[in-house]
Amino acid sequence: MKYGAMVMVLFASICCAQEQSNFQPAETNVWGAEYPRVDSAGRAEFRVKAPDAMKVRLNFWSGPKLDMQKQPDGFWTVTTPPLVPGFHYYTLIIDSAEVTDLNSHSFFGGGKDASGIEIPEPGSTYYSIQDVPHGQVREIWYNSQVTGSWRHALVYLPPNYDTQTNTRFPVLYLQHGAGEDETGWIRQGHANFILDNLLAAGKCKPMILVMAYGYARPAGQPSPDLTGKPFGSPEMRKAMQQMFQAFEDDLTQVLVPYIDTNFRTIADRDHRAMAGLSMGGMQTFQITFDHLDMFSYIGGFSGAGLAFGNQQPDLKTAYNGALADPAAFAKRVHLLWVGVGTEEPEMMHAGLLRLHSSLEEANIKHVFYESPGTSHEWQTWRRDLKDFAPRLFQERPN
Amino acid sequence: MKYGAMVMVLFASICCAQEQSNFQPAETNVWGAEYPRVDSAGRAEFRVKAPDAMKVRLNFWSGPKLDMQKQPDGFWTVTTPPLVPGFHYYTLIIDSAEVTDLNSHSFFGGGKDASGIEIPEPGSTYYSIQDVPHGQVREIWYNSQVTGSWRHALVYLPPNYDTQTNTRFPVLYLQHGAGEDETGWIRQGHANFILDNLLAAGKCKPMILVMAYGYARPAGQPSPDLTGKPFGSPEMRKAMQQMFQAFEDDLTQVLVPYIDTNFRTIADRDHRAMAGLSMGGMQTFQITFDHLDMFSYIGGFSGAGLAFGNQQPDLKTAYNGALADPAAFAKRVHLLWVGVGTEEPEMMHAGLLRLHSSLEEANIKHVFYESPGTSHEWQTWRRDLKDFAPRLFQERPN
Repeated sequence: MKYGAMVMVLFASICCAQEQSNFQPAETNVWGAEYPRVDSAGRAEFRVKAPDAMKVRLNFWSGPKLDMQKQPDGFWTVTTPPLVPGFHYYTLIIDSAEVTDLNSHSFFGGGKDASGIEIPEPGSTYYSIQDVPHGQVREIWYNSQVTGSWRHALVYLPPNYDTQTNTRFPVLYLQHGAGEDETGWIRQGHANFILDNLLAAGKCKPMILVMAYGYARPAGQPSPDLTGKPFGSPEMRKAMQQMFQAFEDDLTQVLVPYIDTNFRTIADRDHRAMAGLSMGGMQTFQITFDHLDMFSYIGGFSGAGLAFGNQQPDLKTAYNGALADPAAFAKRVHLLWVGVGTEEPEMMHAGLLRLHSSLEEANIKHVFYESPGTSHEWQTWRRDLKDFAPRLFQERPN
Repeated sequence: MKYGAMVMVLFASICCAQEQSNFQPAETNVWGAEYPRVDSAGRAEFRVKAPDAMKVRLNFWSGPKLDMQKQPDGFWTVTTPPLVPGFHYYTLIIDSAEVTDLNSHSFFGGGKDASGIEIPEPGSTYYSIQDVPHGQVREIWYNSQVTGSWRHALVYLPPNYDTQTNTRFPVLYLQHGAGEDETGWIRQGHANFILDNLLAAGKCKPMILVMAYGYARPAGQPSPDLTGKPFGSPEMRKAMQQMFQAFEDDLTQVLVPYIDTNFRTIADRDHRAMAGLSMGGMQTFQITFDHLDMFSYIGGFSGAGLAFGNQQPDLKTAYNGALADPAAFAKRVHLLWVGVGTEEPEMMHAGLLRLHSSLEEANIKHVFYESPGTSHEWQTWRRDLKDFAPRLFQERPN
């Protein structure tokens, strides 16, 4: 072997050895699963057993879609380019069937229990478990007369809730996006750890989080038949409006009273906030502006009322004129917060930017936040919550 | 058309119409998923999209394994024979790759988030949500010096725990089986609804359930390399013993004190029980007999110490002689409970029967329960809990 070739082999073996040792099993894996694994550059290596498959494709919903390579041992492998840090949904396409990767835990998104992978963000500890006091996450079931069904919600209570039995707390209602459910903010978003860490650092007030199931149908109403009705069709719009209205009724007429009865809340508008991501942001705007007697803090994370369509929103007439008088609005709404990731699809990004500029022009006091380098994904919404929560329930001059 | 043929067609159409209307989406489905669906006889109909697959197989772990039939629309379908009522894990095998059915929610079993289907048991309401007061299920995280890691557990608190702030409660530690995790007793087992319903009927005492993560490795100890070591090999046995010991240490030295500090428990052996299914039953026997100063109620659900091997257990010497004196044992252990399903694999069924007969012969007071018609599956363990829980923490003559 010539010297040059020897150097090449030596170099390659060191390279590979370094790469090998740098890859670690993803924290979203089931126990014992060595793959998928992630290196310090954010590349992820996948390995899936499918000896008789003809084609296997790795399908990130908001990221690369890559053909996997069949190996002689019947496993298929692929390594991604560096991925944006944070949580990413993915599935596998095996001979045209969309399925999950059994090496990963599943997370409810896209209307299914899909696979997900966590790509560490160097230096970011704000959304992972730290050695600080932890709040508990509770599952509750409540019987809704609006939907005629038992509904499941998650409730985060701050550390020491059980011991400070004379203390009452403000509440943030925090909603998931379309295709997700009430588990998303904990499992994918780590909202509990974000709050634990903010609290331990003295950066936010102790508060209760309530995460509701964002779909609803009025009691006795059959599921609409939307076969062949495209997204945006009148039938689809009507079905969406009915669902949104039923959710609004359930939240304001059943869930809020249930929470105020069963937890030590401060049950007034000054101590009640609502925020949501994507569909949850649209629901938040509808519900809070319909019920400004109940809510005084409003957050739209990559989703908000007035942010869609092709025209500037008319802030004089919107929401029955709630935004018409900037001074009156600023007095009534303690916080209006909208955010979007810089890499979100153009319609979303432009829509939120247009809402922001409209609010600016109309002198409506608000906070606008852009998450750098992230798209319509959980890393954007984790950052949103980290910026949003510290602004809630602070002392205000009268 | 001849009369006979007409009758046949008419009969078939009525049959089919009846069958069609009788099939309902399984309660374990994700919202909106029409399949899998179940009829009143317990048959389940599956439908999966895989237009380019060559072979798709339905794979019940404890039930039928059936080839699915490809339809012209690219979907694969199959209808099972009537299934045993209860919860069943399953996966799909698509061109040799084991995957989940995205129509179903996933449940952690077999070391992965697998699919599951609930087959209703006619007349059984004891494990479903009813209009009775509901306890809350809480997620806790505790820092274990035994494992050197944060550990996650679920805690069920009885209804009114938050309002009866001067009441303290007994605790049942309730363990999952091998391949499952701390979520199993709630998601698959519905232990919370079983307790809610027993309590509402006045059939059991209010109690706290603690569901721990049943795997552990001592802090700093690397994962053993078991490559090529078969189940039952000395290396595998040693790894299992180390894991069991670390779990025992974590539970008795960290988790029990954590629970007693953070919840209103009655922190003595008379008010502390432990039970588990399969591997969890074996762990229960090891831990409770090692710590009879901490536990006085013991349950082995399709798994128990002394139940395996080919010989009668030696009850005179087992567990340092704890069973040697039946009268002393009956005074010290308030309940020894073992159960098994009649349809479990022979090794399991025979092992539990042998333990039962040994206990009988030795005059060791115990309860033996056989679940009719069920195998090594959650319906057996739901019935076990329904029989076991009412026997706990009752007043006893001194």
